[in-house]
Amino acid sequence: MSRPDGETVEETTVFEPRFGPDGLIAAIVADAATAEILMLAWMNRDALALTLETGDAHFWSRSRQKLWRKGESSGEVFAVLEVLTDCDQDALMLRVEPRGVGAACHTGRRSCFYRALDPASPGMLVFRNARRLIER
Amino acid sequence: MSRPDGETVEETTVFEPRFGPDGLIAAIVADAATAEILMLAWMNRDALALTLETGDAHFWSRSRQKLWRKGESSGEVFAVLEVLTDCDQDALMLRVEPRGVGAACHTGRRSCFYRALDPASPGMLVFRNARRLIER
Repeated sequence: MSRPDGETVEETTVFEPRFGPDGLIAAIVADAATAEILMLAWMNRDALALTLETGDAHFWSRSRQKLWRKGESSGEVFAVLEVLTDCDQDALMLRVEPRGVGAACHTGRRSCFYRALDPASPGMLVFRNARRLIER
Repeated sequence: MSRPDGETVEETTVFEPRFGPDGLIAAIVADAATAEILMLAWMNRDALALTLETGDAHFWSRSRQKLWRKGESSGEVFAVLEVLTDCDQDALMLRVEPRGVGAACHTGRRSCFYRALDPASPGMLVFRNARRLIER
């Protein structure tokens, strides 16, 4: 669908996600119920299309270079309740309902963001909310 | 600082951010008080170093190809309270205290994520919490 003349990317109601030169767009994944940020993942056109078609989050794995249905091996599926785009349409946010036991991270933790820079020790991290729901 | 032998990137307490081939790492910016996601921005090594040194968020602008102190022209500075890293250390999250009037987005809105895909109309967006704090 093309955007009406003169309408900017910031104000249009036409969804026109801007994939990067590598064909990917970043997707922030937040728990719809708690607003907790669970992970940052990447989508190509196929991953986005499959997500919208099935209602389950699909991503592109940069490390494995393959399309991936989140939870396909772990059972930690994300049901996608809402997809948001940012002003420039070069980033997405998914509001999801985690299924399974709620261990979004491959380490078995609820969120991938379980470490913070230690203000007292430059270059060092401290663990936060790092309890594992699953031992992997 | 090097990581002790045998310690994985997921479990180490050594901060070793993994910048992409373009020298950038994605940074999710969340309001520390409300947990609202304000924007997704990009950092290179200099932006991260300046952020940690000054306590104010600095980013790399991909569109302008320059280092940028958030708020330098708008006054919408982010005081960084905490920097988190994800399991693979290839994404960051900043918990910030927005200064200025709290219009993080260049459109004058509080967050850059003010549009969602319309479940009723494929390919179309609806505005959400899209009130402008500043008319720009």
